[in-house]
Amino acid sequence: MKKRKKTNQEQKLVVVLCGEGKGKTTSALGMALRAAGHGKKILMVQFIKDFSEYGEIKFSRKYPKGIEIHSMGRGYVGIFGDKLPFTGHKKAAKKALEFARKKGTSGKYFMVILDEINVALKLKLLKTDEVLKTLKRLKNKVNVVLTGRDAPGKLIKFADLVTEMREIKHPFRKGILAQEGIEY
Amino acid sequence: MKKRKKTNQEQKLVVVLCGEGKGKTTSALGMALRAAGHGKKILMVQFIKDFSEYGEIKFSRKYPKGIEIHSMGRGYVGIFGDKLPFTGHKKAAKKALEFARKKGTSGKYFMVILDEINVALKLKLLKTDEVLKTLKRLKNKVNVVLTGRDAPGKLIKFADLVTEMREIKHPFRKGILAQEGIEY
Repeated sequence: MKKRKKTNQEQKLVVVLCGEGKGKTTSALGMALRAAGHGKKILMVQFIKDFSEYGEIKFSRKYPKGIEIHSMGRGYVGIFGDKLPFTGHKKAAKKALEFARKKGTSGKYFMVILDEINVALKLKLLKTDEVLKTLKRLKNKVNVVLTGRDAPGKLIKFADLVTEMREIKHPFRKGILAQEGIEY
Repeated sequence: MKKRKKTNQEQKLVVVLCGEGKGKTTSALGMALRAAGHGKKILMVQFIKDFSEYGEIKFSRKYPKGIEIHSMGRGYVGIFGDKLPFTGHKKAAKKALEFARKKGTSGKYFMVILDEINVALKLKLLKTDEVLKTLKRLKNKVNVVLTGRDAPGKLIKFADLVTEMREIKHPFRKGILAQEGIEY
């Protein structure tokens, strides 16, 4: 079969998926799945999150080839009975960012997903400038996808593609609880 | 390990992913990946689309367990050198809907994704009422996810969860072409 012309295959993209609606992490996962279909390797580093029963983590354990996921957060900050000092959350976020930078610039990956990093920024676990610095390093090697509700203006300015997920209707409003396979 | 309480596991959801921004199909694929991680079976039926080199299709060929994808469209309607009569597109859409209904009510699947069905509705390949009728049948058995740019009001009214993907920034505007692993 004829291959597509590789006109601008070298152009790496920085993608931001933000907004209060559902579909940010799932969209990043879908991008990962699509790229994995083309035989590419994807690294997802999760900020904030530390729940090992997320469907995506179970999935990556079942199909370790292609999509690699590291849940490196320490849970939600200041809510849901969080007892970890703020510095503990900060340390975890810094470690996750450094891990993503090292792995992401290794040449092994096609795409690096920084899941919920916008939330880590919003909560001031990370500084926007240090994230931008890391993005500049990563962008030479990989496509980068950043997810999370609020994205700082500087990040949106830096990105090539930004989608905001707008919530039009949500079942939680009707009292339906989060369900396995749907929300996590 | 203790299992989560299955309070409302039986509540099936109808999810609509619409809007002009990127992330509708990818989000549906991410939902599929997540559910597959939990060991559930997912059926994706694609309307309009007929391109076998989509990353998701290659992916489902590599990992046939869990995510099953059927590309049942006949290509874009009336553009990109489309020579198929309109009735041909209509027939394909009807067939895809019937296929999804039959398979989706078999009890085998946890989730049925009707990819780009909103576009098929917009182009009048299908009638909203016939889709709603099918949804009512499917909803007893499976979670249903419908994607595509424009969703009719009746569909939004029927759905439990609706996210609109808003385009804030898109690289095509900068003249960057669609890339393998990112756009398809």
